[in-house]
Amino acid sequence: MQLSELSRRSGVSAASIKYYLREGLLPPGVTVSARKAEYDEDHLRRLRLIRALLTVGGMSVAQARDVLAASHDPAFDRHTRLGVAQYLLPPHVTAPPEDTPEGATWRERRGEVLTLLRDDLGWQIHDGAPALDALTEALTTLDSLGYATATASLRDYAVALRPIAEKELAIVDEHPAIDEAIEAVVAHTVLYEPVLLSLRRLAHEDVSARLHPPA
Amino acid sequence: MQLSELSRRSGVSAASIKYYLREGLLPPGVTVSARKAEYDEDHLRRLRLIRALLTVGGMSVAQARDVLAASHDPAFDRHTRLGVAQYLLPPHVTAPPEDTPEGATWRERRGEVLTLLRDDLGWQIHDGAPALDALTEALTTLDSLGYATATASLRDYAVALRPIAEKELAIVDEHPAIDEAIEAVVAHTVLYEPVLLSLRRLAHEDVSARLHPPA
Repeated sequence: MQLSELSRRSGVSAASIKYYLREGLLPPGVTVSARKAEYDEDHLRRLRLIRALLTVGGMSVAQARDVLAASHDPAFDRHTRLGVAQYLLPPHVTAPPEDTPEGATWRERRGEVLTLLRDDLGWQIHDGAPALDALTEALTTLDSLGYATATASLRDYAVALRPIAEKELAIVDEHPAIDEAIEAVVAHTVLYEPVLLSLRRLAHEDVSARLHPPA
Repeated sequence: MQLSELSRRSGVSAASIKYYLREGLLPPGVTVSARKAEYDEDHLRRLRLIRALLTVGGMSVAQARDVLAASHDPAFDRHTRLGVAQYLLPPHVTAPPEDTPEGATWRERRGEVLTLLRDDLGWQIHDGAPALDALTEALTTLDSLGYATATASLRDYAVALRPIAEKELAIVDEHPAIDEAIEAVVAHTVLYEPVLLSLRRLAHEDVSARLHPPA
């Protein structure tokens, strides 16, 4: 198909498609004349993934390019290909400088969390996982406001969330094609966050109604 | 204590304290002279709650005033007092207009969710719960992007989150004083959201590592 049809079928403007081609996010079509190229179903699927990375995932064009490069690098296994996509999703938290009291507390808290997840629960987590920084940031904020979280509570959260993660990864693995699997990772990770948080608040309401029935 | 000491002990500026007094968020102190009033430990606790509502909870001054009014209204039981605080926490989603196709789809989806939670799971949920709107918004967004969520998956999420909610409400109930309990509701609801979301991503990493071990 020509660029105009690719645009019509994908819902992505011709200008955006040309931009993705220039930036190397979309592989070039087959040249049929000096001013024309042919595109196929793979381009359509790739466009869908690009839009998921940029729009749903909130990635920059450079981050999306990294995900796409990793997804086709034969040196990487499937775990790494999917992992690159997850690692590049926001938020990315910056640790406080190491030589400050906040930095020391932060690193200590991060170490405790990693010990809990890896040694106690046996989770296979990379030391550089951005979610580990986001978790540490949330916990040190809680600590500083006087709502310190006991390791036992954190353990309860982790144990309760593990079966959810298993079900979600099973959905991702229904897509053997890597582009579709990465799209599923981005969409499920990001779009289910409000689902989880709203359901938690509704569960609070139910538990509270049972604990405090009207007189 | 005088206003200057109240400011020093609470860490809230004298100007902010005067503003909260004017707006009726903080009850007046006992007048000891034309220009002086005495404050006590209740004022200190109330200031802590006000800051939690405004800063952690992201509420407007008017919303915080509503929470404080409800928390001391003898007509309300504990469930309602805590519920008002949760209902006023962001986000507040606006439904699309009823007479549009989006509005009709939205209302249908909302009805399905309410049926699942109330009739299937037996949850005691108020029809006007803002989290129900936030959940509907997230699900219709997923639907429109082609990632429709099966009712069975939603049920799995709800069932997995219920024990977390029970543990969290138990922590809130460790505070019999209503001001402290409301502070705990706000702090736990909001500040634990990034904890939950980061732990979910870490659980994904572990599950993925097991599903796809390096060759």
